[in-house]
Amino acid sequence: MSESYPVDAMNRVKRRHDRGFYDHATVHALLDTAALCHVSYVIDGQPYCTPTLFWREGTRLYWHGSSASRMLRNLSKGEPACLTVTHLDSLVLARCGFNHSADYRSVMAFGLARLVTDPAEKERALVMMVDRFFPNRTAGLRPTTAQEIKATAVIVMEIDRASAKIRAKGVIDDDEDYALPIYAERLPVRTTIGPAEPCPRLMEGVTRGADLAPYAPGRSLDEALTEAYALAYPRG
Amino acid sequence: MSESYPVDAMNRVKRRHDRGFYDHATVHALLDTAALCHVSYVIDGQPYCTPTLFWREGTRLYWHGSSASRMLRNLSKGEPACLTVTHLDSLVLARCGFNHSADYRSVMAFGLARLVTDPAEKERALVMMVDRFFPNRTAGLRPTTAQEIKATAVIVMEIDRASAKIRAKGVIDDDEDYALPIYAERLPVRTTIGPAEPCPRLMEGVTRGADLAPYAPGRSLDEALTEAYALAYPRG
Repeated sequence: MSESYPVDAMNRVKRRHDRGFYDHATVHALLDTAALCHVSYVIDGQPYCTPTLFWREGTRLYWHGSSASRMLRNLSKGEPACLTVTHLDSLVLARCGFNHSADYRSVMAFGLARLVTDPAEKERALVMMVDRFFPNRTAGLRPTTAQEIKATAVIVMEIDRASAKIRAKGVIDDDEDYALPIYAERLPVRTTIGPAEPCPRLMEGVTRGADLAPYAPGRSLDEALTEAYALAYPRG
Repeated sequence: MSESYPVDAMNRVKRRHDRGFYDHATVHALLDTAALCHVSYVIDGQPYCTPTLFWREGTRLYWHGSSASRMLRNLSKGEPACLTVTHLDSLVLARCGFNHSADYRSVMAFGLARLVTDPAEKERALVMMVDRFFPNRTAGLRPTTAQEIKATAVIVMEIDRASAKIRAKGVIDDDEDYALPIYAERLPVRTTIGPAEPCPRLMEGVTRGADLAPYAPGRSLDEALTEAYALAYPRG
């Protein structure tokens, strides 16, 4: 039996509960397919939904922003947050309006988000903020300055509860509707990597390293991110 | 001068304010490129970030879910919400960690969300929930039943404030770093439509109609959605 996140009213998948998963393996694998997430937080009763880049380390999620951002000022003490990742895999056209749908994979993760203030934890996080996506890259970069470290805020959230929700069914119509002369289809959607665009100001002789091999043109971004994750975090 | 959304502490783009836009033209055009959004709302102080399909009508946003969903029960009276749309357009690899970035286009829209209860408004919304994405499709579908209408909840939110934030710059390094022998690139990311997968149970002779022409294989999803929007809402 794989470990699972506890389930209660906060994270139980209520609508279409057959699509819900709570085990670490499913939740973590889905989180590791993505670079972009949306984080929800509350300021004076007002919800905000902010897109940002994030990554996972065990049962912790990290994301970043400038110290000036409204989110960080408010989350720095440890505030409830919800980080969500979604892949849209298709649009589904059925024989009635009600059965129109979409295939998707999503994770909602809940916890208390706080600013990373411990210098060693922050230094390590700033390395992984790059190396999780581009393994071994930081070692070859111009070192980060003290001012840059100060200007970068890192947020961490231990996942208290999480759920994954997956639909991968294509067209599902009511039994009697299949006899109707109505066109229906699954329209697949895919997010892929294009040909890399090297900086026009590269020094002569500087070329793309083998570490960027996962990011090959035409590949699904989620596959490339999963492969990069496995290189950056070989123990999962 | 184009009309704009009012700007205050809620929606002012604070970090990288040069990337912020508040005019209706920019905000609406970006909203119309997307099918998927993330909606944030608050229940007992806990933020939730829920992915869903949505569409725009003038300065109103509509989205849907089952009457059983946790979001709708709580938003039905008119609750503050934030609906966000984000496109990730690239990952940016720079010569130092601090300048690693991404190109993106996003909109955050704020307002009070409420359940659509007026029968005429709900009926029209259920048509547009399909026809906004697939123009003229509802007319050819098996009619929606009273039970389906009852089982579908529609949420509407008048946009009170909104901001768009766009980065489309690729690699930007500190002046002195361009002299370093470090590889840097813009890695483009694109979400495209794949070949349509017709339902295997289609009646003989039933074919894909010309109305689905915007959804051609290899096309960017955001372009196809923009074209479909213009057909569904010719007055914008």
